[in-house]
Amino acid sequence: MNDKKLVEEITSMEDDFSRWYTDVVKKAELTDYSSVRGCMILRPYGYAIWENVQADLDRRFKACGHENVMMPLFIPESLLQKEKDHVEGFAPEVAWITHGGGEKLTERMCVRPTSETLFCEHYAHVVQSYRDLPKLYNQWCSVVRWEKTTRPFLRTMEFLWQEGHTIHETEEDATKETLRMLDVYADFCEQSLAIPVIKGRKTEKEQFAGAKATYTIEAMMHDGKALQSGTSHFFGDGFARAFDIKFTGRDNTLQYPFQTSWGMSTRIIGAIIMTHGDDSGLVLPPAVAPTQLVIIPVAAHKPGVTEKARELKARLESRFRVKIDETDNSPGWKFAEYEMKGVPLRLEIGPRDIEKNQCVVVRRDNREKTFVSLDDLENEIDRLLLELHDGLYKKALERREKMTYTATSFEEIKELAENSPGFIKAMWCGDRACEDRLKEEAGVTSRCMPFSEQPVSDCCVCCGKKAEKLVVWGKAY
Amino acid sequence: MNDKKLVEEITSMEDDFSRWYTDVVKKAELTDYSSVRGCMILRPYGYAIWENVQADLDRRFKACGHENVMMPLFIPESLLQKEKDHVEGFAPEVAWITHGGGEKLTERMCVRPTSETLFCEHYAHVVQSYRDLPKLYNQWCSVVRWEKTTRPFLRTMEFLWQEGHTIHETEEDATKETLRMLDVYADFCEQSLAIPVIKGRKTEKEQFAGAKATYTIEAMMHDGKALQSGTSHFFGDGFARAFDIKFTGRDNTLQYPFQTSWGMSTRIIGAIIMTHGDDSGLVLPPAVAPTQLVIIPVAAHKPGVTEKARELKARLESRFRVKIDETDNSPGWKFAEYEMKGVPLRLEIGPRDIEKNQCVVVRRDNREKTFVSLDDLENEIDRLLLELHDGLYKKALERREKMTYTATSFEEIKELAENSPGFIKAMWCGDRACEDRLKEEAGVTSRCMPFSEQPVSDCCVCCGKKAEKLVVWGKAY
Repeated sequence: MNDKKLVEEITSMEDDFSRWYTDVVKKAELTDYSSVRGCMILRPYGYAIWENVQADLDRRFKACGHENVMMPLFIPESLLQKEKDHVEGFAPEVAWITHGGGEKLTERMCVRPTSETLFCEHYAHVVQSYRDLPKLYNQWCSVVRWEKTTRPFLRTMEFLWQEGHTIHETEEDATKETLRMLDVYADFCEQSLAIPVIKGRKTEKEQFAGAKATYTIEAMMHDGKALQSGTSHFFGDGFARAFDIKFTGRDNTLQYPFQTSWGMSTRIIGAIIMTHGDDSGLVLPPAVAPTQLVIIPVAAHKPGVTEKARELKARLESRFRVKIDETDNSPGWKFAEYEMKGVPLRLEIGPRDIEKNQCVVVRRDNREKTFVSLDDLENEIDRLLLELHDGLYKKALERREKMTYTATSFEEIKELAENSPGFIKAMWCGDRACEDRLKEEAGVTSRCMPFSEQPVSDCCVCCGKKAEKLVVWGKAY
Repeated sequence: MNDKKLVEEITSMEDDFSRWYTDVVKKAELTDYSSVRGCMILRPYGYAIWENVQADLDRRFKACGHENVMMPLFIPESLLQKEKDHVEGFAPEVAWITHGGGEKLTERMCVRPTSETLFCEHYAHVVQSYRDLPKLYNQWCSVVRWEKTTRPFLRTMEFLWQEGHTIHETEEDATKETLRMLDVYADFCEQSLAIPVIKGRKTEKEQFAGAKATYTIEAMMHDGKALQSGTSHFFGDGFARAFDIKFTGRDNTLQYPFQTSWGMSTRIIGAIIMTHGDDSGLVLPPAVAPTQLVIIPVAAHKPGVTEKARELKARLESRFRVKIDETDNSPGWKFAEYEMKGVPLRLEIGPRDIEKNQCVVVRRDNREKTFVSLDDLENEIDRLLLELHDGLYKKALERREKMTYTATSFEEIKELAENSPGFIKAMWCGDRACEDRLKEEAGVTSRCMPFSEQPVSDCCVCCGKKAEKLVVWGKAY
């Protein structure tokens, strides 16, 4: 009974991808709505995924020499206004504090939508000489951007993220850092989340407000739409000039330093859901799954079963994130429940398994069953988790390749955009007008100019003029 | 030269404790000021201490079964107003958002000063049956309270903290949880921070807004003033009634659950500074020190010294948080620098040490030098860190005992409060009028009614009436 009910309550992906997404988020108990407009509550299971994402990324940042800091939550209006492009980009979407401690403020402050301005002000205090450079800082926090329509993880008014901010002696150092952090993000997505990504540069139109260059990693979701999964920005010395950050160089002259920033947010959880999930719910990559293995005692009333299950848990938990379900729900109900929650492996153990000194391990992604000798359990779990990770990655990559098209004419790109969800590779002359027309008439935006792709023709897909830039186009979250 | 300069720049504790504190915070590079009124910037070294505090506490919470979640940053005014005492306590000190996305809001929202109201709204969604209880939640975040005057760590408009929020089936369960978390805080302070604390209950006047009982741990700073280091609140079913949280009990009737909340904040870093610091700067307890041991090569130009120092670092860093200083600053400058930063142990290694297969390890707290054979280095460092921790704890406890007085008359308590910085144990009849008079005329507040102390007399120190409650009085940060 229970099994059926659980399965029935999820819309299938085919029927309505958007409802499937909302159902999964709800049934897997990732988030809850609150009366606070556009803000989500991260429930324990959703937050635990974020904690694992955070721990993994934080290790990668620290291995590069980054240090964590905390900047204020608020930005005074005059500070936000110091860099012209930046304020133009963000001012329309901030939340304003006008009163505090019962009084009207003489200057209003916004809740940070991002913290470039705060970092710049601090750098102006602490950077005096080339010996003080680089500063490689990062901050874990939440930011607020006023959004009209919101969806859990994908677009919320408040979201959790990390924002890295670095400052360097030379343009070359800052450029290197921008690209290094893009690689860190791409490696994290591929090695820890099993999400293949395309690395590339954003067109000027899609650049971050105040950046000289924005780089991105783009992932394809199950429905063929793109999700921008992480960005890394090169600022040149624009912010340094606006905030009057100067240092004494090796030649004893006063110089402007060069800056970068880069961020990844709770959006990435949306990417995990929409890359790997299926009609039974979440499928979590082992590196960030709050529970990597759930132990389900079968025929638990029989003597010795519960004891054996507990023994296995005690044995495994120093090496894996393990949970045991000893509730009196039926095994079938439990199977459906942990499939919904995307737990990578399920370990079933019953009286007959115990007799044979074995257990059954079932993979979440393909439901493949393996009988595993208890003598070799740790190694087998290691192997199965690795295979599951590789399987997820391969499946996502194959899907992306299958759903990536090329177009050489406007009619072709328009037709593809209408009828074939996915990415479209097509040449672009570099004109903003063509980019705008593709958005208006074909409904696609430039996702990125990929680093390592061959041209697909000689001419702009829109105007037909000579074109050298390959762009990946698509619809995006 | 450099050494001298460094030392000269710190005010001595004796001369001006308050300036000493500000100097240490600045010279140890813990925080920076920003143009955001009352908000501090946590620099890498300050934030690294917080990261260690956070990791340690988080392990303790998870060992008790608590799960982390994230609630929204904002609270709509109507939600804040649901619990009468709570809103009265907090409304005067919140920051109000009145505009967002370019428009005036129909209902203003405050930035959370604490999140009871948000947790209650969520509990009303997710708690239906006694089977859903308890929920043991915690959140790591920052909160904002409008403060007139601010000091780094001790009182800032925005501060980082954790707020635990739990909900239980019975009053007994909730009471137990309140006291359990007070013990977790006390154990953390004593075992990890080497700070002795007094556990007790707050008087009604000092209770948290909306609580039925507030428990506290109080620590004594170097200047004899008290610092409230963590609090744990029992709410009864007051919030549940105000937010209409009900569950179906074991007897199938609808019931109100019982709640608790408890918090510890970045204030605790202020407590570390003012408990252990000295005229050379910070002294950090090993459990939370970002660097537990700094290696200083002596006569580094001599062959083999730098190599040996690096070899030791590589050998030690899997077990300790180790740093090596290879800069060309003088050893003397380095000694002063890491004393300022409170690094527990300094390891010096020079050519003669290498010949003898030894090194010198110097304790930060008492500057005791030990010659340590390189064969036994790990064990000796372990031992020295432990001894340093115990030494810090003992010194702080002895100081507290020396600076704790008893008073049995109003004249006596007034005289002590004026001339003898420290804690004063004295009886109290329980009347708010006496508590108010002690504050106004003697300048002391009730820190707590300690759990495990004997009465010092039979009569109220203020009015002379019969009194059974012992109170620890003092001046507080």
